[in-house]
Amino acid sequence: MIYLDNAGTSKPLEPVLSYFNETAKNFFGNPSSLHRLGLDAANLLDESRKKVASLCGGTKDSIYFTSGGTEANNLAVLGSLLPKKNPQKVLVSAIEHPSILETRAMVERLGHEFDTISVLETGSLDLDELKRKLSPNTALVSVMTVNNETGTVQPMKEILDIVRSFNKDIIIHSDMVQALGKIPVNLKDMGIDLASFSAHKIGGFKGAGALYVKSRDRIKNISFGGEQEGNLRSGTENVSGIAAFAKACETVLDSGVSDIKEYKSKITGILEKEGCEFRVNSLESGSPYILNLGFKNFRGEVIVHALEEEKIYISTGSACSSKKKQYSDVLKAMGVSDQWNRGSIRISFSRSTTIDECEKTGYALAAVYKKLKPFMK
Amino acid sequence: MIYLDNAGTSKPLEPVLSYFNETAKNFFGNPSSLHRLGLDAANLLDESRKKVASLCGGTKDSIYFTSGGTEANNLAVLGSLLPKKNPQKVLVSAIEHPSILETRAMVERLGHEFDTISVLETGSLDLDELKRKLSPNTALVSVMTVNNETGTVQPMKEILDIVRSFNKDIIIHSDMVQALGKIPVNLKDMGIDLASFSAHKIGGFKGAGALYVKSRDRIKNISFGGEQEGNLRSGTENVSGIAAFAKACETVLDSGVSDIKEYKSKITGILEKEGCEFRVNSLESGSPYILNLGFKNFRGEVIVHALEEEKIYISTGSACSSKKKQYSDVLKAMGVSDQWNRGSIRISFSRSTTIDECEKTGYALAAVYKKLKPFMK
Repeated sequence: MIYLDNAGTSKPLEPVLSYFNETAKNFFGNPSSLHRLGLDAANLLDESRKKVASLCGGTKDSIYFTSGGTEANNLAVLGSLLPKKNPQKVLVSAIEHPSILETRAMVERLGHEFDTISVLETGSLDLDELKRKLSPNTALVSVMTVNNETGTVQPMKEILDIVRSFNKDIIIHSDMVQALGKIPVNLKDMGIDLASFSAHKIGGFKGAGALYVKSRDRIKNISFGGEQEGNLRSGTENVSGIAAFAKACETVLDSGVSDIKEYKSKITGILEKEGCEFRVNSLESGSPYILNLGFKNFRGEVIVHALEEEKIYISTGSACSSKKKQYSDVLKAMGVSDQWNRGSIRISFSRSTTIDECEKTGYALAAVYKKLKPFMK
Repeated sequence: MIYLDNAGTSKPLEPVLSYFNETAKNFFGNPSSLHRLGLDAANLLDESRKKVASLCGGTKDSIYFTSGGTEANNLAVLGSLLPKKNPQKVLVSAIEHPSILETRAMVERLGHEFDTISVLETGSLDLDELKRKLSPNTALVSVMTVNNETGTVQPMKEILDIVRSFNKDIIIHSDMVQALGKIPVNLKDMGIDLASFSAHKIGGFKGAGALYVKSRDRIKNISFGGEQEGNLRSGTENVSGIAAFAKACETVLDSGVSDIKEYKSKITGILEKEGCEFRVNSLESGSPYILNLGFKNFRGEVIVHALEEEKIYISTGSACSSKKKQYSDVLKAMGVSDQWNRGSIRISFSRSTTIDECEKTGYALAAVYKKLKPFMK
């Protein structure tokens, strides 16, 4: 089996699974309990905070655990607006994850405005449009660092400079689910206000994530109850899932950033050599972990299933919308025509991927292309 | 070690941990992915739905997984109100979990009304007050089946009869976190609309829970994104945590309801025999899993720490508020005076608790009582 759908979810790492087991047995207390078992669990959460903070360049106290990236994104947008009394505006890029874009209904329900900023053909944010759309009532700007479908890396420094020079009080958030552990991230240096992370994209388990919060007093909770996580996220913490997330971060830190740059070009090189007609929807400068390819008049899902026969697992676009949509909204926003859009696939790597697997995938994809080409119109 | 804080959280069951491992290795796909690994994970979720449904007497399609009891409770209250355009009223018992009571701020923010119904000295809902407070704009009534601090079991059938005969369209919700697997639950027979469950109270892991939903079209999502769980709960599902939850339900079903009735009386019998002055804040007819005791002029946390020295782990009240409050709001609502309230403790059993452990705890508690009595005024 060659698993290349790592942007959708990753296979849990072996040491992460072992650590889950260890903590599930020895740290099963409720972190809110007064006795030692509770304290042990609370301390484990704090240790986990440190490890996640180390990987993203935050402080321990800036990490608030959530049930995943979606909750972190929802909390970033809605939690930033809740303290505001007057109508505000939220600006987000047009290629955000649905967990940002779909907050629109609730943002509007709360009396605020929601607007999107276009991207260029490269997938990079239209900085001129950003400048034009910033307004005195803009409360929040949210731009994802690495796009989940194409791997496009946004010019976060320039975006922060533009927003800060317009109004230094605007809260800036970034969905860093596909950035953490994949490209260098240093939140403190960036000076960003909020950032979202997910455990299961880097070898942890589904069900854990985090929101980095620079200033706790600028954001309010959107869940209600026992006031866990500094009252930013109520509900008994998923202790072992969080500890496993921290272990995954530690594993990334220990192994350093692997040099997987040649993975994308290995596959595109084979396709070229084999005479396939395709377009690369990912930039060379994008995340080395995501390669998005388009095949004119093809259907992405047909390619996915054909490769599956060879025990090679890839995806069309994002897993979150794969069952609902034939066309990628991200590629559409980049101006990709329907003919190419519908035939797009995403190949996403992990640290465990080998160059040999990329080679096999390249040839398998070329074979699928040749076999299906006569039928695709 | 004698662990008697099972209402706070339970130690994961051995077969549940094994099953977590198995599914983490073999079903790691994203349930939303198009390929077989995704389908396998989606099927595992559906199998899990069946198992949880079996234990609570629901249908597979009525089970929607959440990150836990708190999220399920939040979703029940807020999700029921979101489809409503005109101002509505929510009625909840005065002794609900904070994840119900603390939704008040958001309920009011959305333009609705939030009111509580008192309980009698027994902890049982004041049915006359319920009748008086039902109004034409009442949209939701929420009453927890088993109280998490005292184990009081509410007369749910009478509550449902009263509400239904006033207006059959009122949505009725129950927090059943302390009921599932502890007392017989048959949601279909009850005819209830919504019910909340948590995995980590019955030998599963923190980070998974469920909301039972009789009619999907009467409730809206409060999380936004990939539209997982029938668009009632966005975010990649915590697949292995959910599978482990289902395994815990299956384990309960397989072993039948254990006869642990004598556990409470074993402890109170020893305290009586040893001449301790105490009051029982739990009803004999309450959950056999929760025994709440009061010691006049004592401080609950001192008893907790004294027993901890003997490696016996109990709690004051609910874990969720144990660090914040010296007095239990639940006992206060029951009319328990401060002198008794502050000296209250909760001893909560699991299916693995033995009668021998109860005996040891009874004698240890009596010894602690005698040792501390001279200092407590």
